[in-house]
Amino acid sequence: MNTTEEPRYIKVHPADNVAIIVNKGGLPAGAHFSCGLELKEHVPQGHKAALIDLAQNQAIIRYGEVIGYAVRPIPKGSWIEESLVDMPEPPALDDLPLGNKVPPALPPLTGYTFEGYRNPNGTVATRNLLGISTSVQCVAGVVDYAVKKIKAELLPQYPNVDDVVALTHNYGCGVAIRAPEAAVPIRTLRNLAIHPNFGGEVMIVGLGCEKLIPERLLPPGAAKTDILMLQDQQGFGGMVQAILNMAEARLIKLNQRHRITCSVAELTVGLQCGGSDAFSGVTANPAVGYAADLLVRAGATVMFSEVTEVRDAVHLLTPRVADEKTGQALIREMKYYDRYLSLGEVDRSANTAPGNKKGGLANIVEKALGSIAKSGSSPIVEVLAPGEKPAKRGLIYAATPASDFICGTLQLASGMHVQVFTTGRGTPYGLAMAPVIKVSTRDALTEQWPDLIDINTGPIATGKATIEEAGWEIFRFILEVASGRKKTWADHWGLHNDLCLFNPAPVT
Amino acid sequence: MNTTEEPRYIKVHPADNVAIIVNKGGLPAGAHFSCGLELKEHVPQGHKAALIDLAQNQAIIRYGEVIGYAVRPIPKGSWIEESLVDMPEPPALDDLPLGNKVPPALPPLTGYTFEGYRNPNGTVATRNLLGISTSVQCVAGVVDYAVKKIKAELLPQYPNVDDVVALTHNYGCGVAIRAPEAAVPIRTLRNLAIHPNFGGEVMIVGLGCEKLIPERLLPPGAAKTDILMLQDQQGFGGMVQAILNMAEARLIKLNQRHRITCSVAELTVGLQCGGSDAFSGVTANPAVGYAADLLVRAGATVMFSEVTEVRDAVHLLTPRVADEKTGQALIREMKYYDRYLSLGEVDRSANTAPGNKKGGLANIVEKALGSIAKSGSSPIVEVLAPGEKPAKRGLIYAATPASDFICGTLQLASGMHVQVFTTGRGTPYGLAMAPVIKVSTRDALTEQWPDLIDINTGPIATGKATIEEAGWEIFRFILEVASGRKKTWADHWGLHNDLCLFNPAPVT
Ligand SMILES: [Ca+2]
Ligand SMILES: [Ca+2]
Ligand SMILES: [Ca+2]
Ligand SMILES: [Ca+2]
Ligand SMILES: [Ca+2]
Repeated sequence: MNTTEEPRYIKVHPADNVAIIVNKGGLPAGAHFSCGLELKEHVPQGHKAALIDLAQNQAIIRYGEVIGYAVRPIPKGSWIEESLVDMPEPPALDDLPLGNKVPPALPPLTGYTFEGYRNPNGTVATRNLLGISTSVQCVAGVVDYAVKKIKAELLPQYPNVDDVVALTHNYGCGVAIRAPEAAVPIRTLRNLAIHPNFGGEVMIVGLGCEKLIPERLLPPGAAKTDILMLQDQQGFGGMVQAILNMAEARLIKLNQRHRITCSVAELTVGLQCGGSDAFSGVTANPAVGYAADLLVRAGATVMFSEVTEVRDAVHLLTPRVADEKTGQALIREMKYYDRYLSLGEVDRSANTAPGNKKGGLANIVEKALGSIAKSGSSPIVEVLAPGEKPAKRGLIYAATPASDFICGTLQLASGMHVQVFTTGRGTPYGLAMAPVIKVSTRDALTEQWPDLIDINTGPIATGKATIEEAGWEIFRFILEVASGRKKTWADHWGLHNDLCLFNPAPVT
Repeated sequence: MNTTEEPRYIKVHPADNVAIIVNKGGLPAGAHFSCGLELKEHVPQGHKAALIDLAQNQAIIRYGEVIGYAVRPIPKGSWIEESLVDMPEPPALDDLPLGNKVPPALPPLTGYTFEGYRNPNGTVATRNLLGISTSVQCVAGVVDYAVKKIKAELLPQYPNVDDVVALTHNYGCGVAIRAPEAAVPIRTLRNLAIHPNFGGEVMIVGLGCEKLIPERLLPPGAAKTDILMLQDQQGFGGMVQAILNMAEARLIKLNQRHRITCSVAELTVGLQCGGSDAFSGVTANPAVGYAADLLVRAGATVMFSEVTEVRDAVHLLTPRVADEKTGQALIREMKYYDRYLSLGEVDRSANTAPGNKKGGLANIVEKALGSIAKSGSSPIVEVLAPGEKPAKRGLIYAATPASDFICGTLQLASGMHVQVFTTGRGTPYGLAMAPVIKVSTRDALTEQWPDLIDINTGPIATGKATIEEAGWEIFRFILEVASGRKKTWADHWGLHNDLCLFNPAPVT
C-alpha cells in the first residue's frame, strides 16, 4: 500500500453515489479525501467507496446508471464489496426507443493515411500473409507440419511476405452440419478464408470425407484448383509436397506486393476488452472510444462486440442506432443470445470472471457500462450477426460472445485489419491474422508487463493524461501498426492464439 | 476398375439380404458371382447389392439387423444406393432388456506383458511425458512459446523423457462456468492433468483472473507450488523463465524413470473409428473387436465410445451389460445425447459424413452396426459419462461424441494409454499424450498411405487373412507400441492434433 500518495478516487458521472479508489494497493480506513470523504474501512484499488449513506434497497449509481441496489444500509465511506450489491434486471428488449437520440455526425477528420497493400478486389491489407484455410480439423496436424516446412524453407525466399498462417480449427466434421445454428461457424470459416490480409490468394486444404465440403469455403471466382484434398494424395509425403507446391505458387504472387498509401477510410478496426477491471470503464475504454470517434471521423469502420457486455447497457445504445432497422437488428442479437444462454440454464451474469470482481467490478451491469465506453459517441450504422461482413463504414456493432478468442475470430471473419484490446488484469493475447494492440487500464500492469503492453492509459486515472490525449495516442499507434512501421508486443514475440469458432450447434 | 479379379461380395450374417462389393473400383452390370447372382448395374466398391428381389417397404438386412426399408421395389442384383433406404427409428430406450445375455467370461490369456513406467500412485505409463496443463486458453500463446524453448534447450539434457506436451484448449474463461453442463469440460481437464503418461508430475499454468480457478485442476496431494500464475510474473520474459524453471524441476525427476515389465492388465486401450466405410464393419472393426477380447482376457481395460454410433445398435449392447446398474448407465448416456442433439434441432443421423456415404454406408444404423464390432464379445462391466475415469477393468463403454478429436480427448481423460483407430476413407489423426495406432479397413488405402497406416486389415475382405489373424496382429502391435519398441506413423511424423474439449454448456 502506497500511503505517501494523496488519496484519490474517480467519480465518473455527476449523479454517481459511488467512486472507485485510484491508489495502488487501495486505501486504509481513515484515508481522508480533499472533498471531506473519509473511508470507514480498507478499500482495494479499483473498488467502490460509498460517497453518501446508502439506505437498504437504494440504487447504487455509477456512470449515471443503476448498477444495483444496496442489500443493507451502507454508510458513507464504506467499501461496496460485490456481495452488498443486488443486481438489477437487464433492460426489457421489447419497448426500447430505437434511434431517438442519434448523435450528430462528428466533423470529418482529414490528413491521415496509412501504408497498406491494395488487394485485387479493391480492399486493403495491413499484412501480406499467405493464409491456408482448412475445411476440417482432421487436416490440422498435416497442415501444421507443412507450415513449419514452408516457414523454414520457402518463406525466406519471399521477403515481401510477412508470414504464413494456418487457419486450423475444431470444426468441419463430428458436428451437426445441418443444424440451424451451423450457419454461424460455416459463415465464419467462409469469411476467414477471404480475409483481406491474405491478398486475394485462396488456398484451402480439405480431407475428402468431411461434412463441411471444402467447396463451401471457396469464394466466388476462386477455382477448384484452390482446394487440395489430402485423401487424393499419395501418403503423408505426397500431402506435404502438394501443400508446399500450392503455397509456393501463392508466395510468388504475394511477394510482388508492396505497401502503398491508403485512406484511413479503408481500415476496419475491431475493439475488445479482456481481463477487465473497474479502471477499464474510466481509462482504457473511454480512450479507445475517443480513438474510435477519430477513426469514424476519418471514414473508417470500427466494430465493437461482446453481447453479454452490451446486454445490460443496451438501452444506452438503442437511442444511438442510425435507423429503426439497425435498432431491430441490435435487439435481435440480444434476444438471440438471451435464448442461447437460457438453453444452457444460465444468463448474461455468467460473463463476469473472478478477476473482474477482484478488479472491482461488482457485476455484469457495471462491467457492461464500462465496456460500451469503447464505442465512443458515433451513431451505430450497422449491426452484424456473428461472423458477418459489414456493408457499411462507420461504427458497427458486430455481435459476438465476449470470449476473447471467439470475439477475435469473429471480428477477423468480419474483416478486421487491426484489433485494439483493453485489459486491466492483463492477458498475453494475440492473433496471427491481424495485429492486436494491447492497451492497459492502469500503471501497475504496464510497469509489471512492459514487454506485453503496447499502450498505457493508466495516467488518466491520476490526472496525468487526458482521455483525449490517450485517444490520439491510440489512433496514431493504430496507423503505425497498420502500416507495418511498428510491431505490437504480441507480434514481436509471436504470441498468436488459435482461432476459436463460435459453434452454437451440437457436436456429434 | 479391376475386371481381371473374380467378382467378390461379403455377406456378414446368414439372414442378410444384401452384401457389399469387395472388388477395387466396384463391379459393372453383368458381373457374375459363383453363387449365381448377377449385377443389374454398376455397384461401387463397399456399396451394397441386393441378394434377393426386395419389395417396397421390405426390411433391408445387414449384420442380421434391419438397416432400413426399401423405398421402392429393388430387383435382385441392383445397387442399393442410400436414397433407396428409408431409415428406421432408433431403438426405444425405456424397455430394453438389461444384462439378459451377459456373455460368459472368455478364458484368461496369460504370458503377455509390456515394458512401461511405474507411477508413484501405482498406475503405469506407456510414455514418459512432461505434461503442462493450462486452466485457460489465455495462456496458450505463452505456453506454446515456452514449450518450444523447453524442447530446444532443456529436453535434450533429459534423454529419458519422451516429450513435453502442452495441454492447451479453448476452455477456462469466456464460458458459463456455473452452467450445469460445465461439469463435463472441467472434469475432463482435471483428469487430463493427471494422465498416467505424465508420471505423477503436476504442472499447471493459469492466468489469474479466469473463471476456471487453477486450483480446481490440482489433484489431491499436489501443492499450490504446482501452479504458476502468469499475472504474478514480471512481464513476458518472467513468464517464460518461470515456466522453464518449473519444467526443469520436473524433467529432472522424470528423467530418472526407466521402463519395467508390466502386466497387460494394467493397460487401458481406447478404441475409435473415423472416416468409416462399409468395410469398417467387416474388416477393421471386427479385427479390433478380436484384439479387444484378447486384451480383456489378459485383464486389460478397453474403452469403446462414440454415442451416435452406438445409439442405433444399443439393443445389441444392453443384453451384454454385466448388471442392471451398468445397463441403466448406458441408457442414461443415450438419453443424455438424444436430448443434447434435440436442443440443437438435430438427431443421431447428423453423425454420418458424406465420405461415409461415398464409402457405402447408407445411414447411421448401418454405420452403428459396423462401429460396435470394435467392442468384441466381452461383457460390458462399466459405463462412463464423458471424461470420467473407470473404476473397473475389462470392457467399458466410455460415452463420448463421435468427433475423432473430442472422443480422443475424452478417452485420454479416462486414462487411455494407447488408442486404436480404424479408418476406411483415411485420416492423418494423432495425439500427443498417447500413441494412436491407425488400422486401415481396405488394401487400397494402405497402398495409398503406406507412411500413415500402421496396420492393414484389408486382406480380410478378400479372404487372404482372417479376423483372428488381424486381431492378434493388432494385439501384438499394441504391446510393441505401449513398450516404446515400435512407433506409430503419427508419432514418427509428429502428427498430433490439438485437444478438443466437449463443452455442452454455453460460451459467454
Ligand atoms: Ca470484454
Ligand atoms: Ca473479451
Ligand atoms: Ca494449436
Ligand atoms: Ca466413428
Ligand atoms: Ca470418431
